[in-house]
Amino acid sequence: MDPIRIVEVKEAVLADNDAAARSNKERMKAQNTVLINLMGSPGAGKTSTLLQLIARMKDTLRIGVMEADVDSDVDAQTIGDAGVRVIQLHTAGLCHMDADMTRRGLEAMGTKDLDVIFLENIGNLVCPAEFEVGADLRMMILSVPEGDDKPLKYPLMFTVSDVMIVNKIDTAPIFDFDLAAACERACALNPRLAVFPVSARTGEGFDELADYLKAFIQERRAQA
Amino acid sequence: MDPIRIVEVKEAVLADNDAAARSNKERMKAQNTVLINLMGSPGAGKTSTLLQLIARMKDTLRIGVMEADVDSDVDAQTIGDAGVRVIQLHTAGLCHMDADMTRRGLEAMGTKDLDVIFLENIGNLVCPAEFEVGADLRMMILSVPEGDDKPLKYPLMFTVSDVMIVNKIDTAPIFDFDLAAACERACALNPRLAVFPVSARTGEGFDELADYLKAFIQERRAQA
Repeated sequence: MDPIRIVEVKEAVLADNDAAARSNKERMKAQNTVLINLMGSPGAGKTSTLLQLIARMKDTLRIGVMEADVDSDVDAQTIGDAGVRVIQLHTAGLCHMDADMTRRGLEAMGTKDLDVIFLENIGNLVCPAEFEVGADLRMMILSVPEGDDKPLKYPLMFTVSDVMIVNKIDTAPIFDFDLAAACERACALNPRLAVFPVSARTGEGFDELADYLKAFIQERRAQA
Repeated sequence: MDPIRIVEVKEAVLADNDAAARSNKERMKAQNTVLINLMGSPGAGKTSTLLQLIARMKDTLRIGVMEADVDSDVDAQTIGDAGVRVIQLHTAGLCHMDADMTRRGLEAMGTKDLDVIFLENIGNLVCPAEFEVGADLRMMILSVPEGDDKPLKYPLMFTVSDVMIVNKIDTAPIFDFDLAAACERACALNPRLAVFPVSARTGEGFDELADYLKAFIQERRAQA
């Protein structure tokens, strides 16, 4: 494949991130493209989750991926190898993507012919939850080795997300991870949270998640 | 035990975090107390690492722990049960501890009769690396399930740390984690990094780490 394009995106000194997020959302809606913000800790499995989803969605949907990282382009290379459009965003050390950085990424990648765009946010369970980027859907990954107490300690991420993906579910016995307890704690913060236990290593659970996303994308695009 | 004391620490509008960090360092040095900043991703095992270290160090050293969290006091309760002085710091949503927040934590906990204080920083592999708190030693935890590529993606944390603890090493075969590759990547950024593979579940590797810390603390206190 071609070399990965890398764009340096720096934090904007914007008074109103929410206004910039709304503007992103309106622009994507106008061209009938769905934007999904994927968040989670370092190593939770964001890139491998995208690979599983791309394999199940790329035959019927035109997919773009924006890989946001503090440094490196290893994730973008991996995604590019999966045969979808990808751009690497570097955040100059910043720990999250904001709406204006997202806008610049969208413009640099080119989005008009895409049905759905995944933004893989910086690996961080705190800051990305505080910044709207204009996404139609916010998905967060809690991976089993992180522990089932994370909703207690990082409540905002679980509160603002629409979907909680519980990754590495095949290792639950090794880590004494209590899925019911994790769900209960997360859903106490956010009763409308949709929960999908998966394993990006075995593929378990991804048919259900891909079906959910396809239905969401279809419904959202029908409204546009 | 008594209820955990919780202190709300908010970000200071300080022009010079480094100056505040130097001030913390001088104050701790003047009273012969060593301050250790413990960092890592959510779920990397910071609290369980502290429990293993406390068990090996509390007979010969007077230990204090500052638990920094966005929310909850579950970690502080756990540490308090281990029989050392502990205070819970809440960061009002902020993703890292800065030097002035650390000062307020030290003052609220009371430190004059302590030999060593561990600051368990917010679970985050990005932001805490950017803020000096005045620690004598910076330890970061990379846990095996996060993956051996993390030094490539979050280089600053590996660059500013003195010690890399590789936790959950007992799960390395399950996660295809290459310890040599992780070390090579981290040490390329920071050749003086001391690496300790451990398992906070089995206790493996903690005798070596505790011995290293005891020697460091002894040497540092002898200089004071």
